[in-house]
Amino acid sequence: MSLKFEVALQACTQDLARELDIVLPHSDGAEKRLHEAMHYSVQAGGKRLRAFLVLQSAHLFGVSKASALRVAAAIEIIHTYSLIHDDLPCMDDDELRRGLPTVHIKYDEATAVLAGDALLTLAFEVLGDESYHSDPAIRARLVVAVARAAGPQGMVAGQMIDLDSETVNEPDVQHITRLQQLKTGALIAVACEAGAILGRASEQQFLALHAYAHDLGLAFQIVDDILDAEGDAEAMGKAVKKDADRGKATFVSILGIERARTQARMLADQAAKHLEPFAEKADLLKDLANFVIERRN
Amino acid sequence: MSLKFEVALQACTQDLARELDIVLPHSDGAEKRLHEAMHYSVQAGGKRLRAFLVLQSAHLFGVSKASALRVAAAIEIIHTYSLIHDDLPCMDDDELRRGLPTVHIKYDEATAVLAGDALLTLAFEVLGDESYHSDPAIRARLVVAVARAAGPQGMVAGQMIDLDSETVNEPDVQHITRLQQLKTGALIAVACEAGAILGRASEQQFLALHAYAHDLGLAFQIVDDILDAEGDAEAMGKAVKKDADRGKATFVSILGIERARTQARMLADQAAKHLEPFAEKADLLKDLANFVIERRN
Repeated sequence: MSLKFEVALQACTQDLARELDIVLPHSDGAEKRLHEAMHYSVQAGGKRLRAFLVLQSAHLFGVSKASALRVAAAIEIIHTYSLIHDDLPCMDDDELRRGLPTVHIKYDEATAVLAGDALLTLAFEVLGDESYHSDPAIRARLVVAVARAAGPQGMVAGQMIDLDSETVNEPDVQHITRLQQLKTGALIAVACEAGAILGRASEQQFLALHAYAHDLGLAFQIVDDILDAEGDAEAMGKAVKKDADRGKATFVSILGIERARTQARMLADQAAKHLEPFAEKADLLKDLANFVIERRN
Repeated sequence: MSLKFEVALQACTQDLARELDIVLPHSDGAEKRLHEAMHYSVQAGGKRLRAFLVLQSAHLFGVSKASALRVAAAIEIIHTYSLIHDDLPCMDDDELRRGLPTVHIKYDEATAVLAGDALLTLAFEVLGDESYHSDPAIRARLVVAVARAAGPQGMVAGQMIDLDSETVNEPDVQHITRLQQLKTGALIAVACEAGAILGRASEQQFLALHAYAHDLGLAFQIVDDILDAEGDAEAMGKAVKKDADRGKATFVSILGIERARTQARMLADQAAKHLEPFAEKADLLKDLANFVIERRN
């Protein structure tokens, strides 16, 4: 991992924390508890992979950092809402996330449902608002792209299929791949496309970024399954080996750990290749593909 | 209630059902269950008050019916998502809504959470999409207005305060009024403003519609409390007297039923008066104010 990449990822995390604090509501009224739960979950950290993708894809087209950061915040907010709801007792029932109690443990279930709802809604207020970009056509296009990626034919469909998967007989690689493309791939893809939308990219540039995002997202998920199977709960900051305990099919349970590792490596290399047309402007995105498969959490 | 009003409300309900069917996803894939739950909840009916407000406020400015109907569908979709989540066991724990089993009873809790999430996201995809209006500035403005009304400083805040209200010592009329303005008033207000946004209304016209919506929303909620207290479960299609059973403060518990009735009548009259500048073009909106306080469910 290059030093330049490490520095850029660190800067992204810090810039994003400041941006999120600007974007999230602050209140001393009766709704204080809701707003606190929103801050708690959003500021709990994480790799900020999606934010980094927005910033770096925007960088390819010379988009201003202020515009890109606002869109990055909106997409991280949507990612956070999805984690809060996925962690609920009626869903994956997780008590730990990023080393901290999940929202329904720290607060309660009702607050967790509402904090998720509020974050999802806020993300679209942010994307529609004129403060980050003067062209309403760009803003409306971002609203639609993000909503499609996150909605009933994107991320939410993926979570529904994932919950139902425990009842599917012998799920195969095709099943897991489609599930993960919806559940995590769609939002990762739109994070890459966001920079292209902000930068009024050509159709060909869109396709290159989309192909990169596709392979990156899949590599990311395969590594997630490997890390869960290897099971270092402390490094992961959440419960591990849950998939195996539930008898849930994953890339690892189907491919075996060695083939899964080879597959992830191949996808990461392929992801980086899609970015060749952007030359050295895309170096950090290429580094990211490597980071995704070498991470320990 | 005028015959013209009854006919218009009926037509709105029918047009909306068709529009919702166009807007909601259909699928035979593994996500079928999710999409079915979305259709089930959205098509369960209801008074379609918010849709009617969009159509009639749009009518004041000569907006095309196709544009207004699409926005009406988005706002009814948001209203439906809020009902699904409010009915969850960790929230109001209701098993019956509009005479039918609530989504978590008909399906399960996880599906109910996800169907709500999917509907909320879909509403913003609809509002951002160019198919209903060619001007992206109008679309982006609608996205922001609806998100503000529904989000952490609007509807979701109202539900949070409502849940916490059971622990508030001696809530007064001010507390209940603010709570209801957030919980139900904000979305009713934005339904009225949607027509004004579509119709590029003047600042003064906005203010008139906003004042109408404010009084109408409050009258609506007071009547809701009266109907709940009077408790005709069959006419209401849901459990009644729940507020009293929970010892929850309402307009009725604070004002008494007679003063509540007088207050609702006064607000409805006042609401209609705000519309005088629009002359007979606003007749159906004035009728609606009357309908809201005379309804039996």
